[in-house]
Amino acid sequence: MDNLGVVFVSELVGTALLVLLGCGVVANVALAKTKGFNGGFLLVNIGWGFAVFSGVIVSYNSGAHLNPAVTLGLVASGAEEFGSGVPVNITSVLVYILAQLVGAMIGAAFCWLAYKQHFDDEPDPANKLGVFSTGPAIRSYGWNLVTEVIGTFVLVFVVIGFGRAGDGGGLAALGALPVAILVIAIGASLGGPTGYAINPARDLGPRIAHALLPIKGKGSSDWSYSWIPVVGPIIGGLLAGWASIPLLPLVG
Amino acid sequence: MDNLGVVFVSELVGTALLVLLGCGVVANVALAKTKGFNGGFLLVNIGWGFAVFSGVIVSYNSGAHLNPAVTLGLVASGAEEFGSGVPVNITSVLVYILAQLVGAMIGAAFCWLAYKQHFDDEPDPANKLGVFSTGPAIRSYGWNLVTEVIGTFVLVFVVIGFGRAGDGGGLAALGALPVAILVIAIGASLGGPTGYAINPARDLGPRIAHALLPIKGKGSSDWSYSWIPVVGPIIGGLLAGWASIPLLPLVG
Amino acid sequence: MDNLGVVFVSELVGTALLVLLGCGVVANVALAKTKGFNGGFLLVNIGWGFAVFSGVIVSYNSGAHLNPAVTLGLVASGAEEFGSGVPVNITSVLVYILAQLVGAMIGAAFCWLAYKQHFDDEPDPANKLGVFSTGPAIRSYGWNLVTEVIGTFVLVFVVIGFGRAGDGGGLAALGALPVAILVIAIGASLGGPTGYAINPARDLGPRIAHALLPIKGKGSSDWSYSWIPVVGPIIGGLLAGWASIPLLPLVG
Amino acid sequence: MDNLGVVFVSELVGTALLVLLGCGVVANVALAKTKGFNGGFLLVNIGWGFAVFSGVIVSYNSGAHLNPAVTLGLVASGAEEFGSGVPVNITSVLVYILAQLVGAMIGAAFCWLAYKQHFDDEPDPANKLGVFSTGPAIRSYGWNLVTEVIGTFVLVFVVIGFGRAGDGGGLAALGALPVAILVIAIGASLGGPTGYAINPARDLGPRIAHALLPIKGKGSSDWSYSWIPVVGPIIGGLLAGWASIPLLPLVG
Repeated sequence: MDNLGVVFVSELVGTALLVLLGCGVVANVALAKTKGFNGGFLLVNIGWGFAVFSGVIVSYNSGAHLNPAVTLGLVASGAEEFGSGVPVNITSVLVYILAQLVGAMIGAAFCWLAYKQHFDDEPDPANKLGVFSTGPAIRSYGWNLVTEVIGTFVLVFVVIGFGRAGDGGGLAALGALPVAILVIAIGASLGGPTGYAINPARDLGPRIAHALLPIKGKGSSDWSYSWIPVVGPIIGGLLAGWASIPLLPLVG
Repeated sequence: MDNLGVVFVSELVGTALLVLLGCGVVANVALAKTKGFNGGFLLVNIGWGFAVFSGVIVSYNSGAHLNPAVTLGLVASGAEEFGSGVPVNITSVLVYILAQLVGAMIGAAFCWLAYKQHFDDEPDPANKLGVFSTGPAIRSYGWNLVTEVIGTFVLVFVVIGFGRAGDGGGLAALGALPVAILVIAIGASLGGPTGYAINPARDLGPRIAHALLPIKGKGSSDWSYSWIPVVGPIIGGLLAGWASIPLLPLVG
Repeated sequence: MDNLGVVFVSELVGTALLVLLGCGVVANVALAKTKGFNGGFLLVNIGWGFAVFSGVIVSYNSGAHLNPAVTLGLVASGAEEFGSGVPVNITSVLVYILAQLVGAMIGAAFCWLAYKQHFDDEPDPANKLGVFSTGPAIRSYGWNLVTEVIGTFVLVFVVIGFGRAGDGGGLAALGALPVAILVIAIGASLGGPTGYAINPARDLGPRIAHALLPIKGKGSSDWSYSWIPVVGPIIGGLLAGWASIPLLPLVG
Repeated sequence: MDNLGVVFVSELVGTALLVLLGCGVVANVALAKTKGFNGGFLLVNIGWGFAVFSGVIVSYNSGAHLNPAVTLGLVASGAEEFGSGVPVNITSVLVYILAQLVGAMIGAAFCWLAYKQHFDDEPDPANKLGVFSTGPAIRSYGWNLVTEVIGTFVLVFVVIGFGRAGDGGGLAALGALPVAILVIAIGASLGGPTGYAINPARDLGPRIAHALLPIKGKGSSDWSYSWIPVVGPIIGGLLAGWASIPLLPLVG
């Protein structure tokens, strides 16, 4: 298989695992009758952080972006290749993002299967959607966008700091732990207002899955909010990539 | 002692430690009058993850499977040896699994001794069994099986990703931390419906111990459910092993 | 850019990130309507520890002090350079401390932006200030000072132990994890009486930001207490630096 | 200073730090009006684990035993030196244990100073003692002893597994993290019945400090229970040392 095929499979599998586990911990805390019901924000934080850890472990070959904001941030940072040997160009960017989106949809579908009975028993449609996609604590497109931009800026800026361009493979393997810690940090610290999507694929993929899957008693997929966790992270990722050009040689 | 003898002792000791600590944290959270009573799902998660960490540390010589689903997953993945220098064949598979099952029974017995008074004071027989073995939040053999298959697939797929075949020893030592994080992730994210056995020995060994030990006021060992956390993890492990053949060379 | 310019940017960016995330987790737990509201002390602890982790990662080039007490402790320990190649002298000390203070103000301002609506909706001015700066559980200048001295002594003594002088760069990269663990430890263990400033810049910078920013319905910035989390950490840092001269060659 | 002098200072400082932070987290959770009041068992667990981490970091030169059960376990395991170059003999054993006991007393005194006002405001004398020393959930000398023996056996057996004899220095530096994880595991899993002393110095040193310090409104130091967390850990440590002779070459 050529390099782009490897990237596609690697990003798809990694993002599927990330979303299966990440949406899973929300299901465990939010849905009726689970063993982790009402388990608290820290449980969700740690669950999401370690979900990212697991996804990064299994997508070493593509540099483990698992997030269009990371891919676009690397583009903005002037990287010549993606930590996978694959050169940066329109085609490779599209392959990365498509794989992430499809992987996220697949991961969300398996999460639904793993919690099938709890989805069936859950009376509140908003809780069902909350397992798949984020929503704001106080709805305000402007400020919600600001929060997602800041959160994703932090994510992508530090991730680029871990290993610029050619050394991006360092994110995988042992490097999975720093990324997990960073995601826990962002969730704990900046997740309060919007539930920290900080990843367009992580939010849009499961939202599409929510719309398509025959989930019993599901409600709206809240499309009116859906652009915030896509546009915000893209802006944040691009800003982080651009900021890394002058700043990172100085700081790290 | 020949290699199979080393494997037997190593897997037995590691699984005993894993089950002693793993069942211990459930005892601490579930039984009457303990200091950790009602300590929450995250405490159980972290306790189980670090129990696996401790078990892996002390069974370096056998590759630290500690779980028949891992052993069978390695077989299905086409491994030629078990990360211990021992070749894959019927005899070695049986030695691994027998050691894991016996170790799990011994660990469960020591957990009972450590919490002896709290078992005696606990009024609810279901809580006593819950220390030893898993049970479903909503009983449904089909969906419970699906959840265990998915959870174990994730475990074995990622574990095989850490170090295929001959490099399996990497799981021990520093490699114990990634496994612990992975187990915490699976527990947080996929543990809601069935309590994540994801290991036939971890569930069946303590269930046999529960049936045999003179536990005051104990109830049924719930044999009607007992096949789920055995069959589900075996299916999940085999699927992960098979899936790793085409996928892992691509992703990691 | 000369070395002091690099140090200035590196410390500013690192401290801004540290304070953005650190104040952020308090906002998430303390302010009205957030998703992490009432998330508990451990969430705050882990959030602050991982905030420090993230800040350390991006200020490798300056040795990642991010704290005047660390800078002054290194001076007191007789270090000849700051883990950044920059020699220890009045000018370099002032550059470090100024960068830390300005960075902390900037980080606090972004935290306010990220939680803008929740600041607006929060009725209690004391909760708003609590996001920016620490305050005592029981007000008593003498004993509050003692607690901050002890906490900062532990921080600086162990940090100097990680890597004396020229090896200070070891704090960054992988070394970020030990620092994070240490900060979680100090917060969990010594944070009860004063909320563990243990860093003059982390407390004074955000307090100045609190005074300057147009925060809706804000109250006093509590300047009467403000000297404690400045003077206490400075004393603790200096004592740790001096103590490290005879002790560290013996212990580590 | 000769080697035994270095060992004395190193063990004293490390154990003082361990007990300052370890008792500190209990103070934070148990005493009136602290910011971490009622923070939960996991907070105590993580606090104690990271307290051990911090202590290990600063006592590299003595091999970071910080616990007479570890020292005696190494003797029983047939080690020829203590991970510090110091040979195993009666004198060196006494130096280790004396330093640990004195260090624990000093650490407990500083914990009292850090939480002085909260000790003064706390109405229940049992809560004050609980900060210093462990007590059983259900008092029964026999079973409490069993629990402490099992917990300490796990600690010392795995610690010896990390690095036998001459490699004991590996416990310090990066090796501090595995020890911290192990202590969190034992606390979460085996701490329910007795609060896991698993270290005679950690329990007896602070108990002596409790008896000597002028703590306002203090009650009994519960000397009738005091021998359990001394004798239990010694038995557990010796058994682990002996067991390691045949078992560890096989398992790890």
